[in-house]
Amino acid sequence: MATAPPPPIDAPGREAGDRMLALLTELFPICRAKTGAGVRESLALLADRLPTGGGEWTMTEVPTGTPILDWEVPPEWNVRDAFLRDPADPPGVRLVDFGESNLHVLSGSAPVDRRVSWSELQGRLRTAPGRPADVPFRTCEPGADWGLCVSQEQYDELAARGEREYELRVDATVADGSLTYAEFVLPPTAPAPDGPNEVLISTHVCHPSLAHDGVSGIAVATELARTLVERPRRRFSYRFLFAPATVGAIAWLAGNRDCADRMFGGLTLACCGDDGPFTLRRSRRGDSPVDRAAAHVLKTSGEPHEVREFAPFGYDQRQFCSPGFDLPVAALSRTPDGEYPEYHTSADDLSLVSAAGLAGALGVCAAVFDVLERDRTCRNLKPFGEPRLGPSGLYAAFGADPAGAAAQRAVQWVLNLSDGSRSLLAIAERSGLPFAAVAAAADALLAHGFLTDDRSADLSLGSHT
Amino acid sequence: MATAPPPPIDAPGREAGDRMLALLTELFPICRAKTGAGVRESLALLADRLPTGGGEWTMTEVPTGTPILDWEVPPEWNVRDAFLRDPADPPGVRLVDFGESNLHVLSGSAPVDRRVSWSELQGRLRTAPGRPADVPFRTCEPGADWGLCVSQEQYDELAARGEREYELRVDATVADGSLTYAEFVLPPTAPAPDGPNEVLISTHVCHPSLAHDGVSGIAVATELARTLVERPRRRFSYRFLFAPATVGAIAWLAGNRDCADRMFGGLTLACCGDDGPFTLRRSRRGDSPVDRAAAHVLKTSGEPHEVREFAPFGYDQRQFCSPGFDLPVAALSRTPDGEYPEYHTSADDLSLVSAAGLAGALGVCAAVFDVLERDRTCRNLKPFGEPRLGPSGLYAAFGADPAGAAAQRAVQWVLNLSDGSRSLLAIAERSGLPFAAVAAAADALLAHGFLTDDRSADLSLGSHT
Amino acid sequence: MATAPPPPIDAPGREAGDRMLALLTELFPICRAKTGAGVRESLALLADRLPTGGGEWTMTEVPTGTPILDWEVPPEWNVRDAFLRDPADPPGVRLVDFGESNLHVLSGSAPVDRRVSWSELQGRLRTAPGRPADVPFRTCEPGADWGLCVSQEQYDELAARGEREYELRVDATVADGSLTYAEFVLPPTAPAPDGPNEVLISTHVCHPSLAHDGVSGIAVATELARTLVERPRRRFSYRFLFAPATVGAIAWLAGNRDCADRMFGGLTLACCGDDGPFTLRRSRRGDSPVDRAAAHVLKTSGEPHEVREFAPFGYDQRQFCSPGFDLPVAALSRTPDGEYPEYHTSADDLSLVSAAGLAGALGVCAAVFDVLERDRTCRNLKPFGEPRLGPSGLYAAFGADPAGAAAQRAVQWVLNLSDGSRSLLAIAERSGLPFAAVAAAADALLAHGFLTDDRSADLSLGSHT
Repeated sequence: MATAPPPPIDAPGREAGDRMLALLTELFPICRAKTGAGVRESLALLADRLPTGGGEWTMTEVPTGTPILDWEVPPEWNVRDAFLRDPADPPGVRLVDFGESNLHVLSGSAPVDRRVSWSELQGRLRTAPGRPADVPFRTCEPGADWGLCVSQEQYDELAARGEREYELRVDATVADGSLTYAEFVLPPTAPAPDGPNEVLISTHVCHPSLAHDGVSGIAVATELARTLVERPRRRFSYRFLFAPATVGAIAWLAGNRDCADRMFGGLTLACCGDDGPFTLRRSRRGDSPVDRAAAHVLKTSGEPHEVREFAPFGYDQRQFCSPGFDLPVAALSRTPDGEYPEYHTSADDLSLVSAAGLAGALGVCAAVFDVLERDRTCRNLKPFGEPRLGPSGLYAAFGADPAGAAAQRAVQWVLNLSDGSRSLLAIAERSGLPFAAVAAAADALLAHGFLTDDRSADLSLGSHT
Repeated sequence: MATAPPPPIDAPGREAGDRMLALLTELFPICRAKTGAGVRESLALLADRLPTGGGEWTMTEVPTGTPILDWEVPPEWNVRDAFLRDPADPPGVRLVDFGESNLHVLSGSAPVDRRVSWSELQGRLRTAPGRPADVPFRTCEPGADWGLCVSQEQYDELAARGEREYELRVDATVADGSLTYAEFVLPPTAPAPDGPNEVLISTHVCHPSLAHDGVSGIAVATELARTLVERPRRRFSYRFLFAPATVGAIAWLAGNRDCADRMFGGLTLACCGDDGPFTLRRSRRGDSPVDRAAAHVLKTSGEPHEVREFAPFGYDQRQFCSPGFDLPVAALSRTPDGEYPEYHTSADDLSLVSAAGLAGALGVCAAVFDVLERDRTCRNLKPFGEPRLGPSGLYAAFGADPAGAAAQRAVQWVLNLSDGSRSLLAIAERSGLPFAAVAAAADALLAHGFLTDDRSADLSLGSHT
Repeated sequence: MATAPPPPIDAPGREAGDRMLALLTELFPICRAKTGAGVRESLALLADRLPTGGGEWTMTEVPTGTPILDWEVPPEWNVRDAFLRDPADPPGVRLVDFGESNLHVLSGSAPVDRRVSWSELQGRLRTAPGRPADVPFRTCEPGADWGLCVSQEQYDELAARGEREYELRVDATVADGSLTYAEFVLPPTAPAPDGPNEVLISTHVCHPSLAHDGVSGIAVATELARTLVERPRRRFSYRFLFAPATVGAIAWLAGNRDCADRMFGGLTLACCGDDGPFTLRRSRRGDSPVDRAAAHVLKTSGEPHEVREFAPFGYDQRQFCSPGFDLPVAALSRTPDGEYPEYHTSADDLSLVSAAGLAGALGVCAAVFDVLERDRTCRNLKPFGEPRLGPSGLYAAFGADPAGAAAQRAVQWVLNLSDGSRSLLAIAERSGLPFAAVAAAADALLAHGFLTDDRSADLSLGSHT
């Protein structure tokens, strides 16, 4: 009988963490943008890393100019090289070099290949004055602007040289092409519940060499797919969406206008790699199953965390939660975007992330979907007084140690509140016990005939109290 | 496009503050009571100070003995002079002199003109022992009692003189007459919403020379009328009621038994002149539009404030909120009656109030009625994903400065939550942004075709969340 | 007119406290268990102490083997003596002696009368290692185990003697017999409300010499019966249940399967004798009248207290609140079971309890049932404006002292909120005034024709706000 205490949420442990960190490290150097070769290269790498076992991988190319909701797909932008040279320097000496950091090119910059005076150049150099050693990440609409991004220290050195001419090259193209996104869909392996039965896990793939804000979400989503593939039973269909932020999500939504009908819940993942506190931003609905499951998992996790109400800011959650779709998609991160000093600079590098940080995020995600998979509404078959558990060995099953005592308490809560009106998640919320403990107690009671779960899935998750 | 940050609530500024302080200073010396010449003189002065521009001024005299709800109009009380003399003193020397402070006479005192011994007199002298230098304000039913009010120090000096006879004169009259109240009604200048469309602003006019507790409410109400007259559009009718406390409100209610049908909301104003924190006491309904608007204005004002639940105490709110009427009338003040040491003594004088204090109160009132006037429920016409704001110049409209960023956030909140179920006030409450910022964002979005407000006025103000 | 301030909740005072302490002291030495002579002796003593005046006393014997819900009545267990001797000691010297403390025998122990080696014995001696001087209270199913309970110090002394043989005698019987519980029912003396009209007060009677956890509840329940007998009007029927914990409550429920239909509310009483803070654990329903009344009484009592949500732990509340019955039974205690260091040891003796502690608990109980008896929904007959109270003497009735001012406030609250939708308890909750003050104000207003209570009893207790 499964009466072990619930696994701590960092259970994925070292192996999965190392795997995520390795993938993140592979992805980190690739120069991604909203469109172009960097995204395709990254997605191809993912296709290779995603688990086998029934999942279906598709990549979608949406041509430039395609109308997508209120927008249209932009021209494709690619960059091969970029540098700034002082003609007086020996050949090969680059003052600013794309090869050192792909953040040096303004993402979307029009191509340039000519001499520019310091007077003209200085207005085209973006810096992060508050972080003088770091190169900022800046973007523009494809071809709508041009320039480089440099550290304030680089800028000051250039300024100290005084007025002169530089060789500037941005070897980029802005042309008709397409926007690329990928999906990995795991079908159910158990009878699906009535009603919406798809779960969305979405992460953005458009950031260049940014570790925490950029590729950490991709790494966690990929490993989460592995976790779900290994799960013996899945009653939901899981759709992993890897798409450029904003325009990618909008493109996907444009092709999935009916998604609200099939979406049971979802999570956007970003900023999952540092060791900061977890942050959940609820969906616009605020109290959907995934909102409740994620808030409960964090609350009982023992991990520092913050649960925030929905706000229409941040990454793609605001597209999924626009009022026309209003999908029950929550946003999970560790330290959120914009709330750490290295955000959108070259200092958001591999030193900011760790295998442990990634594993913690994976653990929370896995626990959230474990709640969705295992939640159901049971009914106590012996509701008059407390039933005699001893003959079934249900008392003996729990040791006198604290874990056994907690399991015993879970049994009593499940028996008391399983009157057909509350799901196991509602019981976990009410009792303050981890869902895993409540679900284990329910499994044991079901096995011994104390409960029935003829309502095999209560998708509304029952009432709160 | 109106995207300026919301005006701070002290926007009325110096000019309006000076005007209010000047009016208050004029009104202060007049000896008002529940009835009589002082009230009429004060109201006549108001009639002169209220703005022209379509408002209608009426004064109502309700004769003594008229039944008013469970009461009847009392006899009219007037006082011309009052003093206490020691016959041994030189002529003209008054030990207590109404000319120095009209608080010296017990308000409602029967007339007296005779010699009284110290033995008899001492029981007729009211003091405020806890504030030995101040004269208390005390009242009785007209003619039901007689006496003077003196400082404890005056009392002690008289007591030190020992037993002797004094000349006491209270030159008052108690006679059939009438109770006087005045109304100033501003009609709507824009299409009125369906349903109740009258707003009540009420303040008491029965206090003699008391500055904060007495005339500050009159000054703010008068200037508020000017603010509303200058407003380009008013969809509500505004009724300003200047009446003696309790019996005046009861007389008005007796003549307006149908007021509940037409009353959209209201505020009682009193104690508006000091620099203490704002205090809102919600109406008995607790969550009416004016309650919500006032609580929101205070919450986002940056001003120290307290929002209290309804309680059947204080000034005329408890009459308007008696269960038979249950009007949605909230009470706004700075430091409330009874909660400052100078309350109902001669120390509640001009030194307690200031132009800035009055202007702050006016600003809150103006902001509250700005909410009621501008609130409406809109619908996002491009609800699928976030719409493209750039081509309309709606991004460019907002600068990179903090005010521009706040305006941008307001635009995103309005777009996300305008699904036809929430009014702008509900969006302001949910987002925590000032209503003015939300309304400005809605105006801009309406102007550019992103929103519709075909439900031009949602009088229920939509749901909360 | 009854306008005195509400009595403090320790009103029962010295006499009742002394009576409870005397009863507790009589009951303390009796060796009670789940079944057997000790329970019967204790109940017989109660029958003698309960008040006359219309109450009906019944004792019920349920034979061994009777099915009771999911259980059956266990064999009856009795013990006459128990001891441990070293044969080397002089005759009469007992190393462990039931005569010193009835906790020394494992409650339910099979009979033993033979020599046992230290090797065998040591596993049969229960201790409380954390409290070396105290004998623990331990139990087993009748005859399922055998042994003694000793202090850790006693154990260590025995261990120091080394291996040897002891004379062990547990003069107990395990045999068919019966389980005993008693009821004392006070019928209504006033018209009963429609719907459920029975109130249950339950306390366990199965603990041997334990003062706070054991007999304090019995003492308070007995004195509460006296308080209720002396009450001039009772609209509810009061059923006091004295039963062994768990199996006794289950036996009673088995014989009262229809109890949910007649149960208006109830309290379980245990751990009522120390001077710790009061603890209310709400019923499973959470917001039933008795939950609200008890929470309100504690909140306005000025006594330290904690109000907890329901949890399916502790004494018999969890049987009454099992989902099949779901009775509105709250649990009241001072320091709860398991939350004080002397719990279930010989240190839970008479030194832990006091007349004042018992009287405080009695006062809370009496106040709770006073709320249930006096609560009703009234209607203000003069709801337009505030009515004129002076002519009825209702102002004069209240002095200028703080108690008078509180009474005056209660009058204003009752008038304002008595619109037929709120009961007096709802008004007390809303106003924060003690129920007794609100009820006294209502009585005065009813007597003077300001209110009607034609809905003589609002069993739902009206809405909250």
